[in-house]
Amino acid sequence: MKKNLLIIGAGGVAHVAAHKAAMYNDELGDICIASRTLSKCEGIIESIQRKGHLKDPAKRLYARQINALDIPATVDLIKETQSEIVINLGQAFLNMSVLEACLETGAAYIDTAIHEEPDKVCENPPWYANYEWKRKDRCMEKGITAILGAGFDPGVVNAYCALAVKHHFDKIETIDILDVNAGRHGKYFATNFDPEINFREFIKVWTWIDRRWKEYPTHTVKRVWEFPVVGQQPIYLNGHDELHSLSKNIDADSIRFWMGFGDHYINVFTVLRTLGFLSHLPVKLANGQEVVPLKVTKALLPDPMTLAPNYTGKTCIGNIVKGWKDGKRRELFIYQVSDHKACYEEVESQAISYTAGVPPVAAARLIANGAWDVKTMVNVEELDPDPFIALLDQMGLPTDYKEIEPDSPASFNGTVRDLETEIAESTVTVTVSAADPMIAVRPKQSP
Amino acid sequence: MKKNLLIIGAGGVAHVAAHKAAMYNDELGDICIASRTLSKCEGIIESIQRKGHLKDPAKRLYARQINALDIPATVDLIKETQSEIVINLGQAFLNMSVLEACLETGAAYIDTAIHEEPDKVCENPPWYANYEWKRKDRCMEKGITAILGAGFDPGVVNAYCALAVKHHFDKIETIDILDVNAGRHGKYFATNFDPEINFREFIKVWTWIDRRWKEYPTHTVKRVWEFPVVGQQPIYLNGHDELHSLSKNIDADSIRFWMGFGDHYINVFTVLRTLGFLSHLPVKLANGQEVVPLKVTKALLPDPMTLAPNYTGKTCIGNIVKGWKDGKRRELFIYQVSDHKACYEEVESQAISYTAGVPPVAAARLIANGAWDVKTMVNVEELDPDPFIALLDQMGLPTDYKEIEPDSPASFNGTVRDLETEIAESTVTVTVSAADPMIAVRPKQSP
Repeated sequence: MKKNLLIIGAGGVAHVAAHKAAMYNDELGDICIASRTLSKCEGIIESIQRKGHLKDPAKRLYARQINALDIPATVDLIKETQSEIVINLGQAFLNMSVLEACLETGAAYIDTAIHEEPDKVCENPPWYANYEWKRKDRCMEKGITAILGAGFDPGVVNAYCALAVKHHFDKIETIDILDVNAGRHGKYFATNFDPEINFREFIKVWTWIDRRWKEYPTHTVKRVWEFPVVGQQPIYLNGHDELHSLSKNIDADSIRFWMGFGDHYINVFTVLRTLGFLSHLPVKLANGQEVVPLKVTKALLPDPMTLAPNYTGKTCIGNIVKGWKDGKRRELFIYQVSDHKACYEEVESQAISYTAGVPPVAAARLIANGAWDVKTMVNVEELDPDPFIALLDQMGLPTDYKEIEPDSPASFNGTVRDLETEIAESTVTVTVSAADPMIAVRPKQSP
Repeated sequence: MKKNLLIIGAGGVAHVAAHKAAMYNDELGDICIASRTLSKCEGIIESIQRKGHLKDPAKRLYARQINALDIPATVDLIKETQSEIVINLGQAFLNMSVLEACLETGAAYIDTAIHEEPDKVCENPPWYANYEWKRKDRCMEKGITAILGAGFDPGVVNAYCALAVKHHFDKIETIDILDVNAGRHGKYFATNFDPEINFREFIKVWTWIDRRWKEYPTHTVKRVWEFPVVGQQPIYLNGHDELHSLSKNIDADSIRFWMGFGDHYINVFTVLRTLGFLSHLPVKLANGQEVVPLKVTKALLPDPMTLAPNYTGKTCIGNIVKGWKDGKRRELFIYQVSDHKACYEEVESQAISYTAGVPPVAAARLIANGAWDVKTMVNVEELDPDPFIALLDQMGLPTDYKEIEPDSPASFNGTVRDLETEIAESTVTVTVSAADPMIAVRPKQSP
């Protein structure tokens, strides 16, 4: 049984995780929220108090200032707070320093995204092999529980894969993970989490096709699919963290990720990317200043935290699994629908943060009670999904299932084989300008 | 007779002006090109030598480094170079310091754009009254010739107004100045001159309607007109420098300016403007850096100088004048067509820089020979247009005329009266988002 929780980070996801942790502090013990900016941690604590979410008032809920890139300082903080579980929800640049601090102190480690270095983007797959898995042996030797990618996607969608293997399929052919936000924030343009991390997801599309990594230009493969609850939605083939562990741990021919974008989003994104505003590499201004364009873009876009009060509509995230069960073809959509307004009413946050912030607390509860305290480094799909899915059902993220008639009009059309054809016939064209070495993506003219 | 020319600035327009001045250095004397960056001045001199454009090889053509915001340094440079004529083609922020240096040394002054302060954009009209005209009395007292706005627009289009008054109309009702670049540079997006100055033109639309200033949001009034040579082109009501003197000096009910933009330009501009990338006011980044977004945009866009070699197509700039002559209604288009490729072959520059860079040299020749050496501050329309137009005919910017049947389908439709209706019925809508205090302009869906 592990006790006392340290949450690193004070953004939207940490806000939700802290609320949920407070609601189960009888199991988790004292909760410390630590980030570079103390006032942001204190703001989260005020929100928890305003909502009356601290279940056991005898347990502590408090804030600390920390630069989590500083490993000795993080070690000291873990020791001072006597935290046996650390949920790392800071920027993805912090992952390895926080993990090192856990290795040194023996605390369990949970994160929700793959480690990134500020000056590198979309490195060679599988990304987990570049940083995380290099530390797996040390976790095992020291008996450290490290659960990687335990948000929604990566996280719950990985557990959905494990569920499919354990209960629903004898053989899996393809898994398509779909992530759609059918909500409206009322702003001209905004990202739902830190733009600096968000846009890095869309630089290259690494995807797992026929048991090989393939790279595509961003936003070149579009489908429109009829989702449960949120209806018809446009989605684009995209790269995503979870493919980088599922490709190793799940026996399937192809595992792909699709994200929903409206035409307006694609247009604004294309303008910004093509002109270089999403670049993480510094440019020199006429006045000699060196500036990273992506940091300017971040400063100009709305703070994702400010979107929550006016957000309406729902998200739908889940896995379409195709394969065989009991000698018959099967196509099953395992999914979760969240409502922005309901999330805001519960924890003063929007659904994107909610879906990412609840699962690591479920994982922490499973480490605390021993079910997932595996004393090594794992990705979520390597763990028993049943207790996790059961906790999420209680904690605000119930799982739904939809049987789809294989090869029917309702099917998520497209087999592994025809993806190249689909790209060729897509409603989006990729044009490489002779004059510019940049790839410009423009919607085809409708006939 | 005035001798020796100092050109301040080393951008695209200065490049053209230096070429043209070299071609008439028997009249103009020694030529010094001075800017902050000496190597840029030297590059222009190399281009002139490559093209063999120095007419009188006995006259000097040389470069100097100068910070033209430094008035004493500029005074010293004018004295050292014994320049009696200064063509100021630096950024518009320099105008008043260069003018002050001319006032102190007695040199004649020519510029091509209205003075701007870096921290102010689209001040109250008429803009010339904010800085230039405040110094008119001192020019008169000291006998300094200062010709304001002597590029193409402002500049030649002002002379077209004077031509219309002098030769072609008894009474003018409306003048519509049209500026269309029907060329292609092959880049995803670029401005034809310094983005920092260029975008400042499109923040507000100040226009002179019914003898009053009216302000409109940018890109809200669109027309499509059949131009000579370049054919049907979309143009948008826009503010522009020349309106700020023509409104005072030309007896007409309305004087408006229209600029041609394609849908792609409008789209990219709208994204950048709406998100704040065109702002001249600094923003603070998460790392504490203070950055002016417009300067970042400038750093990311192609250097306008690099567009020239691949530019194809033509520009068409001119004035549609409507009114009365000899008791009959008349509508006359006075215009100029330039070809990007021809300009590049002649002076290694594109047509936008060419049309702006030739006229100030024609003005300098007229000061040198006394015809325009008026010993006071004037805008171009206050001068006799005939010798100017005659020089431009020789120097590569011949003027054309097209009679238009008034109130016919060929007419530049729209009277002063129906502009409000036109705005209401325009193909462009202005939507003010409830959530954002910014104005977002989006093309209407075609039916």
